[in-house]
Amino acid sequence: MRTYFSERHRMHFPQAELHGGELVTPYERPSRVEYVLARLKERGLTDIVDPGEADMGPIRDMSDPGYLAFLESAWDEWKAAGFAGEIIATSTPVRRMQTGRPPRNIDGKVGYYALASETAITRTTWEATLSSAASAQAATAHVISGAWAAFALCRPPGHHATADMYGGYCFINNAALAAEQFRASGAGRVAILDIDFHHGNGTQDIFYGRGDVFFASLHGAPEDAFPYFLGFADETGEGDGEGSTANYPMSPGTGYGEWSGALDDAISRIRAFGAEALVVSLGVDAFKDDPISFFKLDSPDFMDAGRRIAGLGLPTVFCMEGGYAIEAVGINAVNVLEGFEGA
Amino acid sequence: MRTYFSERHRMHFPQAELHGGELVTPYERPSRVEYVLARLKERGLTDIVDPGEADMGPIRDMSDPGYLAFLESAWDEWKAAGFAGEIIATSTPVRRMQTGRPPRNIDGKVGYYALASETAITRTTWEATLSSAASAQAATAHVISGAWAAFALCRPPGHHATADMYGGYCFINNAALAAEQFRASGAGRVAILDIDFHHGNGTQDIFYGRGDVFFASLHGAPEDAFPYFLGFADETGEGDGEGSTANYPMSPGTGYGEWSGALDDAISRIRAFGAEALVVSLGVDAFKDDPISFFKLDSPDFMDAGRRIAGLGLPTVFCMEGGYAIEAVGINAVNVLEGFEGA
Ligand SMILES: [Zn+2]
Ligand SMILES: [Zn+2]
Repeated sequence: MRTYFSERHRMHFPQAELHGGELVTPYERPSRVEYVLARLKERGLTDIVDPGEADMGPIRDMSDPGYLAFLESAWDEWKAAGFAGEIIATSTPVRRMQTGRPPRNIDGKVGYYALASETAITRTTWEATLSSAASAQAATAHVISGAWAAFALCRPPGHHATADMYGGYCFINNAALAAEQFRASGAGRVAILDIDFHHGNGTQDIFYGRGDVFFASLHGAPEDAFPYFLGFADETGEGDGEGSTANYPMSPGTGYGEWSGALDDAISRIRAFGAEALVVSLGVDAFKDDPISFFKLDSPDFMDAGRRIAGLGLPTVFCMEGGYAIEAVGINAVNVLEGFEGA
Repeated sequence: MRTYFSERHRMHFPQAELHGGELVTPYERPSRVEYVLARLKERGLTDIVDPGEADMGPIRDMSDPGYLAFLESAWDEWKAAGFAGEIIATSTPVRRMQTGRPPRNIDGKVGYYALASETAITRTTWEATLSSAASAQAATAHVISGAWAAFALCRPPGHHATADMYGGYCFINNAALAAEQFRASGAGRVAILDIDFHHGNGTQDIFYGRGDVFFASLHGAPEDAFPYFLGFADETGEGDGEGSTANYPMSPGTGYGEWSGALDDAISRIRAFGAEALVVSLGVDAFKDDPISFFKLDSPDFMDAGRRIAGLGLPTVFCMEGGYAIEAVGINAVNVLEGFEGA
């Protein structure tokens, strides 16, 4: 399986994440993907290709124009306002406030386009974000041109990003881009399977009203885990999308027995949906030693999960999402790929 | 005019405010009210009384029960979760997320009950908050019992707090408590005049559907100023409250000429409404040297504003709100009171 990867991911490395009332070194840091790269090489998966430049057309098609303009100019506006730190949101349009009126003020604009305050934006975050999207695009193009599967080693990740909000370390939704690219290439129905520990709220939000893209997510129950306010089992889609969203929220301590049962159910739903292509949001923070998660998967479980996903027999793009037990991220992510390939 | 003031305000002094991507010493700090106290004494306004304990009944009547339970237990839950810092919100239920399902997880719960991330909660914030509410309650009781006016030197302030959200340095809405107390004492109609630089989003929210409490706010336009997502001129109330909200958003650089014109208009609206009692949200951050605001009022203007407010001839409670040009806060706040008394 070919991997697409850009060194430009390093251009996103904030000094600070707001966590537990402190500014700490971000859990989502460049070394995460270095461990994945090292593991790929260790396992002989050395077909690693730079994706080149992102294709802006599909990114613009999928995104709110004000949001993209914000991402492009935020740093300059923030610095022009005299703020000393990196960009972190303070004020968001919460319940019973105006949700359709983006402010002029950059501090207000940051809050308007943010869904959480843990994620900082730096001077070069936008370049890194585009390089991540480029990997998803190149991997999908590779599969469309005939490969059975490809791995987009995306960083920053994407599944929390909506068409108009960043947060949860995500800015542009790579998995959604890949799904749209499959659709544009002629696949009538596409499925996105999100196995990251956290609910893929951004992906769900983008496709919630659509019947052509099925979204399934296995994740920590929102009562207990970020993003807290989306990912409930009773969210099943709306309008044309009714029945095309499947959430599997699970409790603290969930092990592979229950988790793989949910995976099997998601796989059977995707099969019944009639998907012609698959995008996997490949987070590995379901791992038992992940510092910000609470599932109990062990490293061999990820290989088994890859095997089960391969059973769908679909052209598949894997997009890297989360995973913060840094030294194990490589083993666990590549285990999914090897399980998939060996199936 | 009697002042009610509790020394327990000092129990709220977070180390940190999230501002410009950094954790800085909060603009809203104990020394603010020390300058007001000093100025009161300098001007011979030495009738300063401790309010005693807060009356919890009206606070419970006005508040979401889950919110109060949260404020009471947040610190213990936060520390039990192992977080090292003070309580700061990271994840809020933003647009297209579930707004009616408070999480179990304390980090999620903090976000659910927060409207902004600049405001930290400390171990003793709740005690300070209740002492602030107690000042508002005692001042209002004093006026109900026959005084023409009283000054609640509240800290922390209150006007950004809704029935279920804290933020903007506010936890319990003191002005709303005072208005409800007037209503409960038999005043058929009550007005709240908010002259703080920032929109009193919490107060507006609490009374938005009510026809018995008129709310008028002079403030920095939401496009340009916190809280950014409420306080537009076209927000005029709803249902029974239609026409009982009056917002005067004004642009950066606004001076006393325009500001006092808005004040006169608000006063005439309050008179037309037939208010029998008045609560003034007395913030003085409209001052020209305020570090986080952008109006250009000078100190004598505050005295003139007090004079104009006195023209309503209503029993009046002043609740201290914002003002961050610390050494001038005392002069400007007491100028309003002296202008009012001397009218
Ligand atoms: Zn995750
Ligand atoms: Zn203010």
